[in-house]
Amino acid sequence: METMRWLEEGCLELLDQSKLPIEKTYLKCRDHLDVAAAIKRLAVRGAPAIGAAAAYGLVLGTMRLQAHSKEAFVAEVEAIARELAATRPTAVNLRWAMNRLLHKLRTAETKDLRELKTALLAEAKLIYQEDIVNNHKLGEYGQVLIPFGARILTHCNAGALATAGYGTALGVIRAAQEAGKKVSVYADETRPLLQGARLTAWEMLDARIPVTLLTDNMAGYAMACGKIDLVIVGADRIAANGDTANKIGTYGLAVLAWAHHLPFYVAAPLSTIDLGLVTGAEIPIEERESTEVTHFNGHPVAPAGVKAWNPAFDVTPNRLITAIITERGVINQPYLKNLQELMSI
Amino acid sequence: METMRWLEEGCLELLDQSKLPIEKTYLKCRDHLDVAAAIKRLAVRGAPAIGAAAAYGLVLGTMRLQAHSKEAFVAEVEAIARELAATRPTAVNLRWAMNRLLHKLRTAETKDLRELKTALLAEAKLIYQEDIVNNHKLGEYGQVLIPFGARILTHCNAGALATAGYGTALGVIRAAQEAGKKVSVYADETRPLLQGARLTAWEMLDARIPVTLLTDNMAGYAMACGKIDLVIVGADRIAANGDTANKIGTYGLAVLAWAHHLPFYVAAPLSTIDLGLVTGAEIPIEERESTEVTHFNGHPVAPAGVKAWNPAFDVTPNRLITAIITERGVINQPYLKNLQELMSI
Repeated sequence: METMRWLEEGCLELLDQSKLPIEKTYLKCRDHLDVAAAIKRLAVRGAPAIGAAAAYGLVLGTMRLQAHSKEAFVAEVEAIARELAATRPTAVNLRWAMNRLLHKLRTAETKDLRELKTALLAEAKLIYQEDIVNNHKLGEYGQVLIPFGARILTHCNAGALATAGYGTALGVIRAAQEAGKKVSVYADETRPLLQGARLTAWEMLDARIPVTLLTDNMAGYAMACGKIDLVIVGADRIAANGDTANKIGTYGLAVLAWAHHLPFYVAAPLSTIDLGLVTGAEIPIEERESTEVTHFNGHPVAPAGVKAWNPAFDVTPNRLITAIITERGVINQPYLKNLQELMSI
Repeated sequence: METMRWLEEGCLELLDQSKLPIEKTYLKCRDHLDVAAAIKRLAVRGAPAIGAAAAYGLVLGTMRLQAHSKEAFVAEVEAIARELAATRPTAVNLRWAMNRLLHKLRTAETKDLRELKTALLAEAKLIYQEDIVNNHKLGEYGQVLIPFGARILTHCNAGALATAGYGTALGVIRAAQEAGKKVSVYADETRPLLQGARLTAWEMLDARIPVTLLTDNMAGYAMACGKIDLVIVGADRIAANGDTANKIGTYGLAVLAWAHHLPFYVAAPLSTIDLGLVTGAEIPIEERESTEVTHFNGHPVAPAGVKAWNPAFDVTPNRLITAIITERGVINQPYLKNLQELMSI
């Protein structure tokens, strides 16, 4: 099941992940506002998938644009890119994809609008296709770290659904399975929106990788019981020093892994790395509606009027991260130096 | 709102906590099987509340018993006590209450069945009333540890609803508020059954103590953000060395509190202490139906056929516990010695 499909008539079909695994429907996005709305309400989620969807969204936004000059066209495209970038603040892939398309546009030699639009579409497709290729490369690098028979804990969904395909954290797990390592997975359900229960469990069942679902608060006890050999998660933004923003709960897992002397791996493409931020303290953390916590599938689970806190992400300091796995290889401490080197290759 | 009410006609009314806070209904239990069923399906939950409910359950079970001798009567009562004790394995208060009633019965000087039944009822009422008194004492001892303005994280529900009244962990918080300390509470929602969201949030709103609801996986980030000053939880069973079984997720919180240099307190009456077990490794941990994890209010949230793990409790090792708060005072390490002394006063 594909996360997104581009139709040449000028339509982006997005798998509505908010309804999975109960309903499998594709949303038809015909302009950038449809895509922005889908990103906001998490119909498409996962940093790399958001990047690719927003790239196509920008293309959709430009399709009907008429401008009397390239400069005017670029200005209008920049405005659309800003709108798309504003949908969610934490995942940097969104901004990365916008910047990549804008750079393509600004540096294109032609001034012909039709050619510029074609170039943008080609670049969006490249972002999408490269993401799949990169996940496979990342998986290959990462699976080397996975012992035979490893029991792997993961959080949220960093799978095919969070990317253009294959996945980051789950890509490593898939690659380990393909290498014959007979791994098994413990999946945190990942409240409030249950991406672990709804998406990761589903992907693992589909890939015939043995999976056991846990509530988030069981992870520590699972480690204490010796059920877990390592933890691997995705990322929404990695600062220059390796501090990593990822789904809320990741930080707690990293502390628990450290206390139990378990490796804690972050798997993410280079598009998730933001060298512009020195530390994780600078990463903006999205706070979402408290009703995501007080309600469950639209039904209240808490007394009316209770206050709730709902940060969608947290930041894991670099000292808790055993290694960062990318499509260009695996790096360890010191991340400030090693990330810089990796990015400049 | 009372956790349970004894009606002199021979009926135990139990507040159905599985439906709170949406529905407020009392179940009428007319024999011990009704009470056993209510305990099993968590209509009544919380170690001290289970103990008190089971005590009344035993009384209900004996009411219609006819026996030709005291010995035959005792044997039948023992059988009922075993049935009630088998409903849930982890909370020791259940067994403690059964043993206390059986002891009363065996040591009673009369052989008159009516008098024996009256003595059992009187003892059950005493268990109930003492629990309320003990929670107030425990609260007084505990609140001394709470700084002015403290922001307190708690897990599950160790409140009035988990006891005959007032609460253990929430009793300490209530006592701190009554002492004018202006405390506020962060309540973990406590998956899978959301006792934090449904019960603790409700009790705190009702007591006008400021409360903020969290998903369980937010606790670590809340600590990292400096939002938490201390953690306080209840207990289902405390071994002789201080190792403590409590609601799943407690262990993870204790590790997080330790990593953030925050005090981690356990509040429980002496009836929760089981000197018969040397360490927490001997505490039986109840595993419940996987549907509690895969479903939410009866609706599936995970793909059909996925395996789930559902331990209802975990064990926190004594080294992570700053102090244990009881109705006889507060004790610290070494728990093996100090619990022994406390219990023998």
